[in-house]
Amino acid sequence: MQRYFVKENIDGSTFTLPPEIFHHAIDVMRGKVSDKIEIVGPDQKIKLVELIAVESKSAEGKVIDISTQDPELPVEVTIVCGISKGDKVEKIVQKGTELGAKRFVLYNAARSVAKWDEKKAPKKLSRLQKIAKGAAEQSHRTVIPEVLFCQKLSDVLELTAGSDRRIVAYEESAKQGETGQLAQVLQKTKCNVNVQASSVSLTGFFGPEGGFAPDEIQALNQQQVVSVGLGPRIMRAETAPLYLLAALSFTLELE
Amino acid sequence: MQRYFVKENIDGSTFTLPPEIFHHAIDVMRGKVSDKIEIVGPDQKIKLVELIAVESKSAEGKVIDISTQDPELPVEVTIVCGISKGDKVEKIVQKGTELGAKRFVLYNAARSVAKWDEKKAPKKLSRLQKIAKGAAEQSHRTVIPEVLFCQKLSDVLELTAGSDRRIVAYEESAKQGETGQLAQVLQKTKCNVNVQASSVSLTGFFGPEGGFAPDEIQALNQQQVVSVGLGPRIMRAETAPLYLLAALSFTLELE
Repeated sequence: MQRYFVKENIDGSTFTLPPEIFHHAIDVMRGKVSDKIEIVGPDQKIKLVELIAVESKSAEGKVIDISTQDPELPVEVTIVCGISKGDKVEKIVQKGTELGAKRFVLYNAARSVAKWDEKKAPKKLSRLQKIAKGAAEQSHRTVIPEVLFCQKLSDVLELTAGSDRRIVAYEESAKQGETGQLAQVLQKTKCNVNVQASSVSLTGFFGPEGGFAPDEIQALNQQQVVSVGLGPRIMRAETAPLYLLAALSFTLELE
Repeated sequence: MQRYFVKENIDGSTFTLPPEIFHHAIDVMRGKVSDKIEIVGPDQKIKLVELIAVESKSAEGKVIDISTQDPELPVEVTIVCGISKGDKVEKIVQKGTELGAKRFVLYNAARSVAKWDEKKAPKKLSRLQKIAKGAAEQSHRTVIPEVLFCQKLSDVLELTAGSDRRIVAYEESAKQGETGQLAQVLQKTKCNVNVQASSVSLTGFFGPEGGFAPDEIQALNQQQVVSVGLGPRIMRAETAPLYLLAALSFTLELE
């Protein structure tokens, strides 16, 4: 069933379809009376809505059920990644949203071939935010991840300083056969989720295509960001974040 | 370091660069004397090679080390997926290779929008096989996964009948809150790897964009293919196989 995010919560059982979804639900999807859609507002509740009146310029819906499903990862995951060429960042945001990330932070890494400046960033972020919204609707989430940009890695370190755990996927760790850190961090995170009343957060740092520069790794490690290996194969920049999110979902959501 | 697959094993310590890699290593990468490359033959050994002579039409290399690293997943994984539109199948082969799959089998699913016929298939397979080779080189694997095509799901069931375990990622299982099967299968697979002398195999079935038709699931389940849920979010056709491979790598390669 088609899911839509709306900016304001739906109050009452019958309501007028907000303009931001009218066009897609009625014009594009040809919604007609008795068709059903799902609407999620800032309250993150999934409301099952039946269309009860459809006119050329407006439509009425009726809430017939409120779902108790929670499709969100039990950990707030921030994916930090160096700007890469082409559509790599878009892929990370799209697939990372499907896999449950809460936030994406992009930064100009030492080895980023294409860098963003403050002028370019808003347009790019707005496009990525749309991709995140589309992917959140498609994957039936109740939260649209936010997409942020930082000029420098040091800004990202400051921004994510409050995160319960921070890890960095470092190719050299994997090459040296490091195989224990990720499992340890995920197990500790699982324990936190089970005992902690407040929400648990995890931040994963990923390099651009060319990987991290040694001084970036040093800066991260100095701030207690733990280097982890993600197995013996070299993954592309856009694949490694998906590995982390899948491993996290597997550890926390399946058992 | 650039890695190349060659069709015949390198014998002896000095040798002439095979023509299939000469162009890339010398013309494209501008290889010169004392540069190093890695070469992997059908013996799956990683040979570290130093260029000792470079001419306009040929070059000589010398094996200076043989690596003992094994970047292959300890399980032979076959990813079976329904044909999807656009470049989805290419993405599955590329990313699935990075994540360690040994074989891809594509089939015309009941809900495949674009179907392949026997005439179209060879050209498509040849393109996918090239993508698999490129991804295997880039991810530093020692095996190029094979890519196969079957007209019908029943043919795939026959082809994979010898697999130690077979699972199907079924959206409806996930919707019904099934969360235990995948972890069980992966744990059993891990036990097999630890005790079994011969290689262990696992086959994962994935639907096309529109998902499986009910009679496809019935046919799979009748052949003891176990339905598993992959968490509470709906993943795109090209994302679900990556989830399985990452969860498998995490379970078997990291701890």
